[in-house]
Amino acid sequence: MAQDLVIGIDVGGQTAKCGVVDARGNIISQTVISSADTESPEAFVAGLAQALDRIIAEAGAEGRIRGIGVGIPNGNYYTGVVENAVNLTWAKAGNIPFARMLQDKMNGIPVSLTNDANAAAMGEMTYGAARGMKNFIMITLGTGVGSGIVINGEVVYGHDGFAGELGHTCAVRHNGRPCNCGKCGCLETYASATGVARTAREWLELTDEPSLLRSLDVIQSKNVYEAAKEGDKLALRVFEFTGRILGEKFADFIEFSAPEAIVLFGGLARAREFLEAPIRKAMDENVIPLWRGKVDLVFSSLKESDAAILGASALGW
Amino acid sequence: MAQDLVIGIDVGGQTAKCGVVDARGNIISQTVISSADTESPEAFVAGLAQALDRIIAEAGAEGRIRGIGVGIPNGNYYTGVVENAVNLTWAKAGNIPFARMLQDKMNGIPVSLTNDANAAAMGEMTYGAARGMKNFIMITLGTGVGSGIVINGEVVYGHDGFAGELGHTCAVRHNGRPCNCGKCGCLETYASATGVARTAREWLELTDEPSLLRSLDVIQSKNVYEAAKEGDKLALRVFEFTGRILGEKFADFIEFSAPEAIVLFGGLARAREFLEAPIRKAMDENVIPLWRGKVDLVFSSLKESDAAILGASALGW
Repeated sequence: MAQDLVIGIDVGGQTAKCGVVDARGNIISQTVISSADTESPEAFVAGLAQALDRIIAEAGAEGRIRGIGVGIPNGNYYTGVVENAVNLTWAKAGNIPFARMLQDKMNGIPVSLTNDANAAAMGEMTYGAARGMKNFIMITLGTGVGSGIVINGEVVYGHDGFAGELGHTCAVRHNGRPCNCGKCGCLETYASATGVARTAREWLELTDEPSLLRSLDVIQSKNVYEAAKEGDKLALRVFEFTGRILGEKFADFIEFSAPEAIVLFGGLARAREFLEAPIRKAMDENVIPLWRGKVDLVFSSLKESDAAILGASALGW
Repeated sequence: MAQDLVIGIDVGGQTAKCGVVDARGNIISQTVISSADTESPEAFVAGLAQALDRIIAEAGAEGRIRGIGVGIPNGNYYTGVVENAVNLTWAKAGNIPFARMLQDKMNGIPVSLTNDANAAAMGEMTYGAARGMKNFIMITLGTGVGSGIVINGEVVYGHDGFAGELGHTCAVRHNGRPCNCGKCGCLETYASATGVARTAREWLELTDEPSLLRSLDVIQSKNVYEAAKEGDKLALRVFEFTGRILGEKFADFIEFSAPEAIVLFGGLARAREFLEAPIRKAMDENVIPLWRGKVDLVFSSLKESDAAILGASALGW
């Protein structure tokens, strides 16, 4: 029987989602395991391999898995090593040769890995909104801002395997917000889900403007979204501000690689109704005339729950 | 006899420099013609073809030219068309199918063209400071700021052939200087030869600080350089400011494509003694820790007078 299936694994700080995927992007079987209950890389890989054996059996896919793709924080595509992944309990410090370890446990099925945003870009190109595109930039708007850059049909890994840290390019040069990376003013301190909540909290503190958000003890991006839905002026302005900052930076990105489109994905991208117009406006105002109105802004069409597995699986082909 | 030579042509607003080049980067014969004395593309191409025939004969290279490479403003690598090149008298408006026109006049020898900064990147990779590098960013500091981006050993042309307009990424977001492109705050309004002169003039106007530059009627970047050489404090600070702005933007560029090095070329790069330290400092302060101190800053080692021809010729192979 043809080896016509792949496995996609999305490893996050809390869970690892795994699925057996066919060439059309159907997930045939899947499971989720915890990625937070061990500090031993060996134990995590052993548990993961067991889970994979289970979903392979479920899919009747024994002997048909062509490759395994993994999206994982700080994953180096070139070496298969996970480097200083502070968000993973079992990989906090040092370098874990994750691809080799998993491949050994899986009887030699080839394992490729990259970071989650690059995996998302592969997913969009293989099954999603970027099918047929050879030049695009994937921006993932989640807790942080991730990016995967595709040029000539290939993900850009750069000299060392870590290219595409657009969330850490500078959005605000002076007096910018401190970022987890140690710098200040990074795009992700403003334009992530965390950034949106932070903007709202700052503005509530700085003014007396009435807002539905004032009644809440804790403000998260979803609260800002819900308030905007109800027409809350402050919440609406938070999205306008966030969209403008994104659009300003997208103009810079376009001037770098002249992509056909910028593709948005992730929790915050669900606020499309509030973000799309200000992003487009700022993008067009800040890009040189050559590209004005010519670069698409695309919102991912992949089903959110499947996208992470699909993205990683695209690496398996 | 083997076809072991190429021709490189660098077309600027005033002149076109042409040379016959061997595989080692030796210029065997060369000439310069005017590019400003006609408004007819046909006339310019006819004159150019005559000049090429002359240097081919001079080099004894009849029948040995493998290809012709052209570096030219607004040159589209994909189509061979020069699009709205406002700085060329014979190509001001509309699209000139320059590569095809020249190829026809040269009995079918293949002609490739790209913009001057991309040609410079090809030159550095083939004969210069970037030999052996597969990932680097070329920045040309001249009247403007040009850029050529190399990823995986290939120049990035993007979706439409015009990628790499890093001189027009935003250096100053608010109240930035107006740029020829129609935007404000572009990197090239600060970090070009023109930008350096502009900074000096602005600062002279805004303060009473004594400076050697006050005695001059017209201030150009070379005057600022000469004053800095003599220890003029204001001139020295102009270079520090210019270097800082460059370094800040280089950090963003590194976060995009994770290059091995940034390579500087062009008239203003000759002020290395004043620019290098502030660029390195700002680059390291503004890049995420992953790349701190790890990306080289390289000054072109190509002989300035030859570099334009060599760069273009690299396209001919």
